[in-house]
Amino acid sequence: MTISFEEARERFLPALEGRMHETVAGAGVLFEAARYHLDSGGKRLRGLLPPWIVANLGAEPARGLALGVALELIHNGTLVHDDVQDGDTHRRGMPTVWMRFGLPQAVNVGTTMLFLGVAEVLRSPVGADIIGDVNLAILDIVAGQALEFELQTNPAPTMAQWDRMAAGKTGALFAACFLAATHAAGRPRDEVRAASRYGAELGIYFQLQDDLLDLVGDKQRDEAATDIAEGKISWPVAWACEVGGDRDAVARLMAIVNAPRLDTSSAMIAEAVAILHALGAIRAGLDRVRDLAASLLAHPTNASVPGLVERVLDPIRHAL
Amino acid sequence: MTISFEEARERFLPALEGRMHETVAGAGVLFEAARYHLDSGGKRLRGLLPPWIVANLGAEPARGLALGVALELIHNGTLVHDDVQDGDTHRRGMPTVWMRFGLPQAVNVGTTMLFLGVAEVLRSPVGADIIGDVNLAILDIVAGQALEFELQTNPAPTMAQWDRMAAGKTGALFAACFLAATHAAGRPRDEVRAASRYGAELGIYFQLQDDLLDLVGDKQRDEAATDIAEGKISWPVAWACEVGGDRDAVARLMAIVNAPRLDTSSAMIAEAVAILHALGAIRAGLDRVRDLAASLLAHPTNASVPGLVERVLDPIRHAL
Repeated sequence: MTISFEEARERFLPALEGRMHETVAGAGVLFEAARYHLDSGGKRLRGLLPPWIVANLGAEPARGLALGVALELIHNGTLVHDDVQDGDTHRRGMPTVWMRFGLPQAVNVGTTMLFLGVAEVLRSPVGADIIGDVNLAILDIVAGQALEFELQTNPAPTMAQWDRMAAGKTGALFAACFLAATHAAGRPRDEVRAASRYGAELGIYFQLQDDLLDLVGDKQRDEAATDIAEGKISWPVAWACEVGGDRDAVARLMAIVNAPRLDTSSAMIAEAVAILHALGAIRAGLDRVRDLAASLLAHPTNASVPGLVERVLDPIRHAL
Repeated sequence: MTISFEEARERFLPALEGRMHETVAGAGVLFEAARYHLDSGGKRLRGLLPPWIVANLGAEPARGLALGVALELIHNGTLVHDDVQDGDTHRRGMPTVWMRFGLPQAVNVGTTMLFLGVAEVLRSPVGADIIGDVNLAILDIVAGQALEFELQTNPAPTMAQWDRMAAGKTGALFAACFLAATHAAGRPRDEVRAASRYGAELGIYFQLQDDLLDLVGDKQRDEAATDIAEGKISWPVAWACEVGGDRDAVARLMAIVNAPRLDTSSAMIAEAVAILHALGAIRAGLDRVRDLAASLLAHPTNASVPGLVERVLDPIRHAL
């Protein structure tokens, strides 16, 4: 009997939040800022995945709890650094850590959360077995983050580069979630490896959905296509650069993407989105996200996270 | 037969440099920037200590090499982040990583070097035993770094706060060097613990020497008392705040220390140094550094790093 994401959240979220806050309960500005960041919210997906997967593999979910705490802390450490790097002033409606505590401390807070995550891994019953994989995952996340900045100054970004960026930035930590949880559940090595590959693919799927949601999300949102304003190379933009037929339209698109954020009017953003539609880039993205969903649903590991892949499509289902 | 620091440098530096550069040999801006930073120089003291200590404890120095690579990478990762945080534009005459590669990538480079260091620890023959201690040391370094910024906005910094800051920022990694090396040399647990305490004290001694060198260093240097210009709370400044008799002089000192960097003239710096002398703060610092040297020289662990404590005093010996 497998349990759904909603059941997993109800069962594991209180313990996850409690343990996570214990790790940042200390005195001083670093822990105060870490608590401030964690209290700004978030779905805690990376934290819930390990106990959820472990439970659905028939083992004791508590064996996945420290791993969930670890991976959620690591994820949030990267977000604190991301906000410094992107110059983002707000996250979920609240001033970001660097806005509230200053840039020097924000660098310290992000680094601290990463290493508090590593400390939690070491506390898990399988910590010694997986610490090397988690460490490599963190290196991959940072490399993906670095590639994202490189892509923004690349005159001709490609889909392969986007894939490498997403595999690092988003895929590596999902891969670590599935690897760690499957190992903690006592599964054989080949099943652990397969689960890790599923997690890596799931990360790319999440990132592609995120890119598309920014372009086709419902009109109720305050801001649409913020990636274009921020100069981010979403998958549809990389598709347009690589295979978009109308080169004048692509040149205009990239002029808008590369314009400074404050010079990008909402009319320019609307024009860029219209170009992506006209070139077929958004259609291509929707086709790819559907293909990825089908591939993930056919994977044996999918049974340990029932309904997750379908759930990710919900916010963009109207456009599929 | 123990070997001196000069002999250790001659024997181990080429392998240390070679292995360290192998870890950052990859393609892409992250590795390019890491190489750029490493090539800017440095004494490699944290890298040389483990093979030197292991050799002087009669074990195979190769057992300390991966540890040296690890701890030197970790140290340099923190330096890259420090330069971002302090806004320092140059290090050893070269533009800092953030000046050369931009702030977002400098955050990535620093984090990458920290986790490449952790990966090297895991590669060492004793990696699994000490990874938890190294991880805690990194958390302590970052906490010390955070405390340094907090001290700069503290109206009444104390010597105890300075000690906590130095114990984290500088002591933690030296403690890890001695702990890791003594463990790698196969020494019993109580000797490992004693060596770790020696390393922690050595770190405070180094930091105090560094603070004093900035104030009493030879007059040939381009800049003196840069800590005062940068608003750093050196140990003599903390001493003056806590026990300096003339409160008007202390108030004037702190007004100069807290003035914005660009508003701090060399006349103001000279005045601050004169106040520190008049209050007896520099004399107190020199007395303390001599006491620390005596304590370190009397410690059993000192035999594994012959001449190091004396060597540290050389640049300030004229003032003792």
